[in-house]
Amino acid sequence: MTTRIGILGYGNLGRGVECAVNDAEDMELAAVFTRRDPSSLQLLTKGVPVVNIKDVASYADKIDVMILCGGSATDLPTQTPEYAKTFNVVDSFDTHAKIPEHFSNVDASAKAAGKVALISAGWDPGMFSLNRLYANAILPKGNDYTFWGKGVSQGHSDAIRRVKGVKDARQYTCPIESALESVRSGSNPELSTRQKHTRLCYVVLEEGADAVAVETAIKTMPNYFSDYDTTVNFISQEELNRDHGGLPHGGFVFRAGTTGANGENTHIIEYSLKLDSNPEFTANVLVAYARAIARLNKEGVSGCKTVFDIAPAYLSPLSGDVLRATML
Amino acid sequence: MTTRIGILGYGNLGRGVECAVNDAEDMELAAVFTRRDPSSLQLLTKGVPVVNIKDVASYADKIDVMILCGGSATDLPTQTPEYAKTFNVVDSFDTHAKIPEHFSNVDASAKAAGKVALISAGWDPGMFSLNRLYANAILPKGNDYTFWGKGVSQGHSDAIRRVKGVKDARQYTCPIESALESVRSGSNPELSTRQKHTRLCYVVLEEGADAVAVETAIKTMPNYFSDYDTTVNFISQEELNRDHGGLPHGGFVFRAGTTGANGENTHIIEYSLKLDSNPEFTANVLVAYARAIARLNKEGVSGCKTVFDIAPAYLSPLSGDVLRATML
Repeated sequence: MTTRIGILGYGNLGRGVECAVNDAEDMELAAVFTRRDPSSLQLLTKGVPVVNIKDVASYADKIDVMILCGGSATDLPTQTPEYAKTFNVVDSFDTHAKIPEHFSNVDASAKAAGKVALISAGWDPGMFSLNRLYANAILPKGNDYTFWGKGVSQGHSDAIRRVKGVKDARQYTCPIESALESVRSGSNPELSTRQKHTRLCYVVLEEGADAVAVETAIKTMPNYFSDYDTTVNFISQEELNRDHGGLPHGGFVFRAGTTGANGENTHIIEYSLKLDSNPEFTANVLVAYARAIARLNKEGVSGCKTVFDIAPAYLSPLSGDVLRATML
Repeated sequence: MTTRIGILGYGNLGRGVECAVNDAEDMELAAVFTRRDPSSLQLLTKGVPVVNIKDVASYADKIDVMILCGGSATDLPTQTPEYAKTFNVVDSFDTHAKIPEHFSNVDASAKAAGKVALISAGWDPGMFSLNRLYANAILPKGNDYTFWGKGVSQGHSDAIRRVKGVKDARQYTCPIESALESVRSGSNPELSTRQKHTRLCYVVLEEGADAVAVETAIKTMPNYFSDYDTTVNFISQEELNRDHGGLPHGGFVFRAGTTGANGENTHIIEYSLKLDSNPEFTANVLVAYARAIARLNKEGVSGCKTVFDIAPAYLSPLSGDVLRATML
């Protein structure tokens, strides 16, 4: 019995989900749904229907889990509650401040429909969140540190592209090695924004643009760059395309805590990710959680869940016996 | 409503559990059980009864979870199934090869009694196992690597102490930095036993013992040392007591996997622990899982569980709302 997956939205994340489903022996891709003209989409997988989103309801009985691959700004706040009325759904909603509201909206829909929805899967929120929770539960006395990168920030790249005179840009968020080492040493440092990350920008100028003015505009941009040490490199469009076409990312979650009658022993828990492709790794997390919620729904569970609510064994295609014998 | 914890066995691990319970605002230590004369034990916590193990049944209604702090070789294989007839129990059973048998024995007892038992909590098995499972579920195409140390191996220290002419000894297992770097690079190396770890020994000789013979006996010892590059340092008992009295440990769990239509993108997941006190960190894991199984039992669950079966939120004293708002 394979789990039948639907993909809604076929950008970088949707294509990543397609690859992840193809890598999973217990899953099959049932259909891809799009707002575009279906005939304009070329899937990687042969024989899978591409369907206009307006016909999604006719797939209610043909899909076990719908993986929502839209964006957090405008797509998911409406899509996830909407499609949870018809399908078990998984999303990667990553606007941290709005998670409680999103959870509440999705929970109401999913419970009314008897479906399971899992929101905010991915790596942050997602695997990083899990590591924060486990580490806090184990070391109640301690400090948390999260670092991101080295990786491409789409939001910061977009912000640079809005600067007058900029044709194209790519921004990397970089953790500062000495800050990582300070946390690893157990010294529990207090770190300012500037002490944790630097920002590295590759910028293609429009013809005749003023490089000095562009560099100043970037480095002084509030919220995005002014609190960081920022480096701006001007390169050609060819160089940008050739050397900065990927979407790598990653980061580090630490907890440094103490135990003992007088807190005399220090422990460092570190979790880190080094990802060649941010969307493909995120997609793989979504697919593992799709497996989990398909099972939970078969057990009669409904409502909105997060990674905090799912027992790890549900993510694996292996049986409990095999997991205990091989991974415990 | 606090969770009432019992400790059975008051060695390094039991004392660690006592400290961890005292650090948890939602828990209280109800009693410590011992095979020794109770009057010979001096607890860190005032006002907690020390009880001979033969009187344990009279505490059936006074304890929500009994944390079993005995050893895996001879204590836990009989204790965990026995006490699961009366209490919810947690143990740190760490003989990997015998986990399936232990699980089966404990499951039968716990199910018959309507209790929950959680076996093999700690860091390996335990947190390392969890990270293997999560990483395998997310990256089905890939390789696993586990490294241990730098840390004290009690088993190897004991083996050295059995060598003729040795008065005392402490053995450290050390991961080889170049092997860690090779895994981190994503090169998916094949590593022999010798290429992953070295063994570092501090040995106190008995008076008149032959140092060369002792060193040869250690380095050629099958299973324990002959497959490793081993360094033997001779020191005085005073130096051993002063510089090597702690029980630090830790290690690294990696998964290196690929995604994409042709496996063209590589991802590295790394989890590492650096622990000043192996027994105290293990104790903190046991206590977090005690919280989880007390809740599960109140929900009507029974039987044997492992860390794979417990949804992460059960480990935290915080509510789902607070967890989503602060850690997701």
